Amino acid sequence: MPPFAVPAMAARLLRSSLRMWGGRCALRSPPSARCSHSGEEKRLETPSAEKLTDIGTRRIFSSEHDIFRESVRKFFQEEVIPHHAEWEKAGEVSRELWEKAGKQGLLGVNIAKHHGGIGGDLYSAAIMWEEHDLQGIRTNAKRDGSDWILNGSKVFISNGQLSDIVIVVAITNHEAHSPAHGISLFLVENGMKGFIKGRKLHKMGLKAQDTAELFFEDVRLPASALLGEENKGFYHLMQELPQERLVIAEMGLSASEFMFEETRNYVRQRKAFGKTVAHLQTVQHKLAELKTHICVTRAFVDSCLQLHEKKRLDPATAAMAKYWASELQNTVAYDCVQLHGAWGYMWEYPITKAYVDARAQPIYGGTNEIMKELIAREIIRDK
Amino acid sequence: MPPFAVPAMAARLLRSSLRMWGGRCALRSPPSARCSHSGEEKRLETPSAEKLTDIGTRRIFSSEHDIFRESVRKFFQEEVIPHHAEWEKAGEVSRELWEKAGKQGLLGVNIAKHHGGIGGDLYSAAIMWEEHDLQGIRTNAKRDGSDWILNGSKVFISNGQLSDIVIVVAITNHEAHSPAHGISLFLVENGMKGFIKGRKLHKMGLKAQDTAELFFEDVRLPASALLGEENKGFYHLMQELPQERLVIAEMGLSASEFMFEETRNYVRQRKAFGKTVAHLQTVQHKLAELKTHICVTRAFVDSCLQLHEKKRLDPATAAMAKYWASELQNTVAYDCVQLHGAWGYMWEYPITKAYVDARAQPIYGGTNEIMKELIAREIIRDK
Amino acid sequence: MPPFAVPAMAARLLRSSLRMWGGRCALRSPPSARCSHSGEEKRLETPSAEKLTDIGTRRIFSSEHDIFRESVRKFFQEEVIPHHAEWEKAGEVSRELWEKAGKQGLLGVNIAKHHGGIGGDLYSAAIMWEEHDLQGIRTNAKRDGSDWILNGSKVFISNGQLSDIVIVVAITNHEAHSPAHGISLFLVENGMKGFIKGRKLHKMGLKAQDTAELFFEDVRLPASALLGEENKGFYHLMQELPQERLVIAEMGLSASEFMFEETRNYVRQRKAFGKTVAHLQTVQHKLAELKTHICVTRAFVDSCLQLHEKKRLDPATAAMAKYWASELQNTVAYDCVQLHGAWGYMWEYPITKAYVDARAQPIYGGTNEIMKELIAREIIRDK
Amino acid sequence: MPPFAVPAMAARLLRSSLRMWGGRCALRSPPSARCSHSGEEKRLETPSAEKLTDIGTRRIFSSEHDIFRESVRKFFQEEVIPHHAEWEKAGEVSRELWEKAGKQGLLGVNIAKHHGGIGGDLYSAAIMWEEHDLQGIRTNAKRDGSDWILNGSKVFISNGQLSDIVIVVAITNHEAHSPAHGISLFLVENGMKGFIKGRKLHKMGLKAQDTAELFFEDVRLPASALLGEENKGFYHLMQELPQERLVIAEMGLSASEFMFEETRNYVRQRKAFGKTVAHLQTVQHKLAELKTHICVTRAFVDSCLQLHEKKRLDPATAAMAKYWASELQNTVAYDCVQLHGAWGYMWEYPITKAYVDARAQPIYGGTNEIMKELIAREIIRDK
Repeated sequence: MPPFAVPAMAARLLRSSLRMWGGRCALRSPPSARCSHSGEEKRLETPSAEKLTDIGTRRIFSSEHDIFRESVRKFFQEEVIPHHAEWEKAGEVSRELWEKAGKQGLLGVNIAKHHGGIGGDLYSAAIMWEEHDLQGIRTNAKRDGSDWILNGSKVFISNGQLSDIVIVVAITNHEAHSPAHGISLFLVENGMKGFIKGRKLHKMGLKAQDTAELFFEDVRLPASALLGEENKGFYHLMQELPQERLVIAEMGLSASEFMFEETRNYVRQRKAFGKTVAHLQTVQHKLAELKTHICVTRAFVDSCLQLHEKKRLDPATAAMAKYWASELQNTVAYDCVQLHGAWGYMWEYPITKAYVDARAQPIYGGTNEIMKELIAREIIRDK
Repeated sequence: MPPFAVPAMAARLLRSSLRMWGGRCALRSPPSARCSHSGEEKRLETPSAEKLTDIGTRRIFSSEHDIFRESVRKFFQEEVIPHHAEWEKAGEVSRELWEKAGKQGLLGVNIAKHHGGIGGDLYSAAIMWEEHDLQGIRTNAKRDGSDWILNGSKVFISNGQLSDIVIVVAITNHEAHSPAHGISLFLVENGMKGFIKGRKLHKMGLKAQDTAELFFEDVRLPASALLGEENKGFYHLMQELPQERLVIAEMGLSASEFMFEETRNYVRQRKAFGKTVAHLQTVQHKLAELKTHICVTRAFVDSCLQLHEKKRLDPATAAMAKYWASELQNTVAYDCVQLHGAWGYMWEYPITKAYVDARAQPIYGGTNEIMKELIAREIIRDK
Repeated sequence: MPPFAVPAMAARLLRSSLRMWGGRCALRSPPSARCSHSGEEKRLETPSAEKLTDIGTRRIFSSEHDIFRESVRKFFQEEVIPHHAEWEKAGEVSRELWEKAGKQGLLGVNIAKHHGGIGGDLYSAAIMWEEHDLQGIRTNAKRDGSDWILNGSKVFISNGQLSDIVIVVAITNHEAHSPAHGISLFLVENGMKGFIKGRKLHKMGLKAQDTAELFFEDVRLPASALLGEENKGFYHLMQELPQERLVIAEMGLSASEFMFEETRNYVRQRKAFGKTVAHLQTVQHKLAELKTHICVTRAFVDSCLQLHEKKRLDPATAAMAKYWASELQNTVAYDCVQLHGAWGYMWEYPITKAYVDARAQPIYGGTNEIMKELIAREIIRDK
Repeated sequence: MPPFAVPAMAARLLRSSLRMWGGRCALRSPPSARCSHSGEEKRLETPSAEKLTDIGTRRIFSSEHDIFRESVRKFFQEEVIPHHAEWEKAGEVSRELWEKAGKQGLLGVNIAKHHGGIGGDLYSAAIMWEEHDLQGIRTNAKRDGSDWILNGSKVFISNGQLSDIVIVVAITNHEAHSPAHGISLFLVENGMKGFIKGRKLHKMGLKAQDTAELFFEDVRLPASALLGEENKGFYHLMQELPQERLVIAEMGLSASEFMFEETRNYVRQRKAFGKTVAHLQTVQHKLAELKTHICVTRAFVDSCLQLHEKKRLDPATAAMAKYWASELQNTVAYDCVQLHGAWGYMWEYPITKAYVDARAQPIYGGTNEIMKELIAREIIRDK
């Protein structure tokens, strides 16, 4: 597995967790922990847990994972929540956060040790992929001796402002009969001549995370900047995309679990017509529908995590997880805002932020329509 | 008809129009125009019109309405659009806008002349109603001689910061066996002692419109501040709520028409895989579904407007319009953001604002759940 | 207007009414009645009516229509209901029914008098159209002197067994570059040599109506059997299809109104947990949603009926009505069965029949997917 | 575990399988087989399998299960399919089928051996439960010496005509403050005096399975007819209901998998506009959505099967499975009928039967509304 994917995954997870502070941490596995099945029998599955965000549940985790999860939650409580509002105003998190997270081992948690050389150097990075890049790549690289000259631009780079290194997908063979045979991946470092970062884009949500446009004007890259093999970029990405999409699915599902618990708390406290809102039968059935939808999805995503652990997650299955969980997230967000009444529209409430953040998920990492194309391709092809 | 409803409706319409600038103006009828049926035969209904936002369509309007609509659109093009971004930052529109709008006759367009004395004095006002007020009113008024002493608070007052006069629903008879027999309406003016405006609330959307909390601490009101009859507030509100809800329905539907046209333009220009996005069959069917949903709703809302014109719009029918159109609006907003891809998440695009604005509509003016209660009451009661 | 459409429409309406016996009659206008707007002001629109099936409602009808509707309902009560079970077993209605209906003027009610010569001769007929005929027509006609020789077959002919005359769409010019320029319409009579009726197909529902496969083997037709102009069949159909689809929409909507009232009655009588089912909040909200969905659709379909009356109903608008109302019908059917509990699964209850009958509507008359193609074509074409 | 549940479960499974002949067999575990995890690593999960109905997939099964599944499919191919049409006409399957199935060990496959004495005697039985029995039980039993006298009636007994023994839920303590403390279970045998079987009910679907009304008029039962403890019927049922509901979920999901594969085959063969239907992008996305919905549900139901294997399946989780999978089934059925076009409405096609059979599932075994009550109870109760 190429090393570059891991920090991106970690970055996404961290961002996810930022938004889910206080909620269920999405981080998957600490470096040292291996799933020990000894206590598996006693762990509750999600539907039976007291809260969807309880630590100590789900058969795919062990007590070592629980300890790790505790420490992650503590980190967010102490290092993230007190600063989040200022980061929202700034439109990006502070560099200090990434550094602290790195020191605590929260970044690159599943980088194989022999890849650590690169992984360890980075404290932030972003990856420019997304399958429609493949169709709409506006960056190209030409050889100049042993160097490469990079030109073009790319929009929608998450953490583009803050990152020290970005990975660029560029066309290296214009005559290839399909993008699959003519693209390569390059590492581009901050400060290289001709590498310009455009303005931060003003987004609907995800406000503590910057999104930028990057420009490359005759950027000269050494041969060592090539990641993997020349013209094999597509295959490198294909190996990484399932993981990227699984992370989005996990983020969407964790966010859904968090929103559900926020809303359950709200309706059990909020009074209307002399009783709590939770006493209304329509509210109860709505909660039952949401919880079922969430628990069904949890079983699927956990099953995908297990497949991924064994390197058996195929692209179509990952696409299912991404599409399904990101739609779930928006359904849950819509209903939970409604159950909050007018407070669901006020920025003070976590549910409001969660609502606008959710809307990005069916779009990035490959739109859900592209996911359906991937799934359908397997369904209708001759086998 | 009590006078107070009209400015509120005008305010809502104006706000709606602010958001729908360039789109279909929702304003209903200029003071002088009466529907002349002479040209009715030739006017296209919405499904057959070139664009959903075309002027000169729908049988319920006449050519005089068209001229009025033209002038309203011009006003928004010249007076609103150039300033909208600054109002968003300020969190409220400027007083000057209200004044200009008033001079051009865009406020209180359907106030009966004999009510003009009050209507004309106000250039902004807000009404504190919403049926669950009735259940959760935290304001009360007690007689003190011929005066009233007002105490309590109210959140979620649209344009609360800017308004000179607000109408307050207060409990005047605590012993009434139902809220229907114990509430009254009062006019409270800016500057009255004990009338305090709280902070502006930070909202998900509707950012150029302020929402505030108001506090009343021993505010002394003269007898003339009572609107309508004592303890008859419920009935006064009941007469106004159908109109309020129809306005929300009209706003939601106009917004949907606007979003549809924005999106149609987008997908006809945007390229993907070498063709325009509009060439994809899934996109075409989605647009067909959205347009059908919109046109079906247009027929219903126009039919409600006709009923309202004849003072025959009953509360359950208005509740249907409000609930249905505001859900439509959110469905259309979700799908249109998706069809814009990542640009649908960027604040530069009208669709993004339209998405977050839409989310308020199923909540205010009585949540859609309350609408369903009103509709259901008629269905199951013995007749 | 070619004469042949009318009996087909009448047949559909009659079949519809058969299924909706006791419910709202779908018949549109008695021969003599013209909408008099005198009483329009006082007629209730659907949302405000006591029952959705009440006679005397909707502005598009007059008191003369009401009288006609009364007589039609009486006919169904006396002539249809007592025999329906036996027709279900037989798989077709009796010829006597068609004859009685004809005598009472219930067939061909809107045939212009100068077309009566043909219209009057038929007491049953069926039309073989459906836009995908156009793509999948397996019948062709070749000239032989002044005669035509017809060959081919057609499945899914409603009332094919019982009809004396069928109208066949046949390819008459194989070299036309599109079906639009190479098809013609022919009248084929029972008993013609080579005209063979295949077996009745066993259907999910619509059990009192036969559906058959017809075969044509060298059927010799006189020149007079050609309907309209040679090779202009497509245009003749295009004129008729909007009406056909409007009829399906009207059938679906009438059925929905009928099912709603059946279910309202049921839940107001049925006890559960010591109260009527209608007391449950979830049931009330479900009924509110269904009624709103129905009333919104009623406004649209009535508006289409008005356009059709003025010969201004365009194909895309008719396609919207067909697609929307037939999906409504299935949504209502599903929910109403559920509200009946286990009785909703028993053939004794009208809701059960209504459920299986509903399923045909999104399929015939052009599938709803074809409707979306028609609607989308207008949306994306350059204007 | 009381013995009586098993034949009922087996009966349901058999019925399910009857309908799913040729498809994925829902039977869970042969008596001797224990899940051996040796080959687990190599088994494909559902999303990655060639077909959803492939044998040899899913980690929860072993190769021994595969062999058993093969033999079950063979049984259906040889003993069920050739006779199914005649059983539909008869309205019930033949006694011979039950006997053959019993000989091959397909009934009561998971009865513990020490319960075999009872289990083995029965070749058919039915259980009269369903939580709303608890609320609407119209049967009561009174002591008479050591005997019991049973009176009352019960509708909707699946296989009531054919069964030799039925289990009756009867009120034995009218003064209990809730049904939970006042009901008991009794075995009633065919031929007992006063035990009368009413007419077969005519159903929408499930036509080869009889549903009947049973009447009890002073039926005298010996003390040994009491199942479990007196007045503890509720608790006995509570132990069995999760399994019953899991079976319904499994049936619904298996049926969905079967329908999906039928439809995939159909659209890959059926031509429209010169290409196969499977070439249409809208069809491809629809299939992608259906497959995702099915695979997500498969992960959840398999996870429930694992919990049940370990006796850890709680009632709320089982209720989720029942509600979710039975709704899935109806969604899949609706869309698959549509993708079959007019053939989807003809009884010759398995999809048509599958559509009407599906409609029973959200109703029996406790309606889905009751499932939501059970789920919601856990969500809102204080813990």
